Amino acid sequence: MTLPGFEDVLAAAQRIRPYVHRTPVLTSSALNAMTGAALFFKCENFQKVGAFKARGACNAVFSLTGDAAQRGVATHSSGNHAAAIAYAAGLRGIPATVVMPDNAPPVKRAAVEGYGARVVTSGSRPLDREEMLESVLQETGATFVHPSNDFHVIAGQGTAALELLEDQPDLDIVMTPVGGGGLLSGTALAVAGQGKGARTLAAEPEVVDDAYRSFRDGRIYPPTNAKTVADGLCTFLGDVNFPIIREHVSDIITVSEAAIVRAMRTVWERMKILIEPSSAVPVAALFAYPEVFQGQRVGIVLSGGNVDLDHLPWGVAADR
Amino acid sequence: MTLPGFEDVLAAAQRIRPYVHRTPVLTSSALNAMTGAALFFKCENFQKVGAFKARGACNAVFSLTGDAAQRGVATHSSGNHAAAIAYAAGLRGIPATVVMPDNAPPVKRAAVEGYGARVVTSGSRPLDREEMLESVLQETGATFVHPSNDFHVIAGQGTAALELLEDQPDLDIVMTPVGGGGLLSGTALAVAGQGKGARTLAAEPEVVDDAYRSFRDGRIYPPTNAKTVADGLCTFLGDVNFPIIREHVSDIITVSEAAIVRAMRTVWERMKILIEPSSAVPVAALFAYPEVFQGQRVGIVLSGGNVDLDHLPWGVAADR
Repeated sequence: MTLPGFEDVLAAAQRIRPYVHRTPVLTSSALNAMTGAALFFKCENFQKVGAFKARGACNAVFSLTGDAAQRGVATHSSGNHAAAIAYAAGLRGIPATVVMPDNAPPVKRAAVEGYGARVVTSGSRPLDREEMLESVLQETGATFVHPSNDFHVIAGQGTAALELLEDQPDLDIVMTPVGGGGLLSGTALAVAGQGKGARTLAAEPEVVDDAYRSFRDGRIYPPTNAKTVADGLCTFLGDVNFPIIREHVSDIITVSEAAIVRAMRTVWERMKILIEPSSAVPVAALFAYPEVFQGQRVGIVLSGGNVDLDHLPWGVAADR
Repeated sequence: MTLPGFEDVLAAAQRIRPYVHRTPVLTSSALNAMTGAALFFKCENFQKVGAFKARGACNAVFSLTGDAAQRGVATHSSGNHAAAIAYAAGLRGIPATVVMPDNAPPVKRAAVEGYGARVVTSGSRPLDREEMLESVLQETGATFVHPSNDFHVIAGQGTAALELLEDQPDLDIVMTPVGGGGLLSGTALAVAGQGKGARTLAAEPEVVDDAYRSFRDGRIYPPTNAKTVADGLCTFLGDVNFPIIREHVSDIITVSEAAIVRAMRTVWERMKILIEPSSAVPVAALFAYPEVFQGQRVGIVLSGGNVDLDHLPWGVAADR
């Protein structure tokens, strides 16, 4: 298997530049004071489709040869990756099919269809999804773009950290959430490639700590069935991203559900920006492990800003 | 009476530069597409204390002579101006007293005290507040800084539009919400002073349309007793800002409560930033009067981002 390297992140940055935002890096004197660290927030919540996923999807779609592109792309996701694939395919003018479980929220389906992609539903068990995807691929000849365990997706996700390090070259730590491992592995490639000694850390909800345990034990664990408020992170590592994570990531930190919600609320209240719960996971780590971060210059990738404003999770912090 | 002019806005910009953020100007391809206008959002929700009020308060506090400064400042407000005065006084190291009604939310009182100001409570009728303020002024010799009808406050608030026009010199329209008229009059001075022909517009909730009627009839009307979701705008024009508004403002537009909440939600969902209901009032005007804005380059001052996350107003848009 060919793994992506730093040069693939650089190539991705060139390839996707016309299609994604160069998002701003925000600072907050309030959060600096609260954590004792100098924090630099890469705002992928302001990215196209509201999440970093636009980067990997655009890199995958615009890496296709002409023939493959004509046959289109397909994926399974009910979240930001689905919207990102639909967005990227629309830009290139090629067909996209997204397999979603039949219990996916209608608003997510509408978002994907709004970008012009076709949605096909499957049963809600993982195997149902795989079967439906397989039949879509056979029928269309489309290229499958996995949400996180894909060469071009990983390289594309790494471009957020690349930009962050261009804006702030002297970071001690770069931290992301980890779910499927696409953002984390791409970030680790960018940080290692910069070569100035910054460490890549990741943060994960402790109720779905499969990445933490996989990293610790050197083997990929399957996902737990637990629910987390950071629902974008209920996935597991893959054979493309795991070797990169093992080589280039310094540590994976876990945080509680209540800490995630408190961190999310703190960012909303103090920075006046919307971040989704997954984005709050590394922020929660700052508060949970002050000894790791105090006095450090820390870059954090705020991964996305797609939330359901009618169902905000504030109660979770109070409950637990 | 001496009215502030463009040169006072320029002087304010110099004076407050060390104490306030130069806030970013954001754009949104989604909102441009929805409105048919080219929109430029001056993000005072990212300002110190979460609102443009930090500008006027800093200008007033740092304009005091040494003797007056020693005696401190006082104001009446339960909102952003109270926090701004407390913030500015804390920076200069002088005493500040804020008169709040005894039914003000405890969280607002705590915010003001958190900046080091003294809070004294009064009954909740306007006359109670005036009496208490008068006794504070007599007791302390403090300088009263009115939230909106004050020479230095007006000049300070105008610096937001000054920066906006530095970043985007070729605007056709600059629009703000109007409540007490401090932001609107300062903005009008900045726009007229720039001298490139942009028009200053204001937007107001139709249930508290005293500024609209005052502007139309050429006389200051008292506030209505109605409630609006944009509670920061339940105030009325004054003799310092009204002449400026009459001379330099092109029009005042009113919008419904439901339109305000829909606009607020649209900004949250599409731009991933928190704005308070008052800030959504000019955004609502874009949707309510497309014929005014289509094809125009429109700068909007997003006045603040202080909201109670436990009581969001989404229900208002559905109800009415």
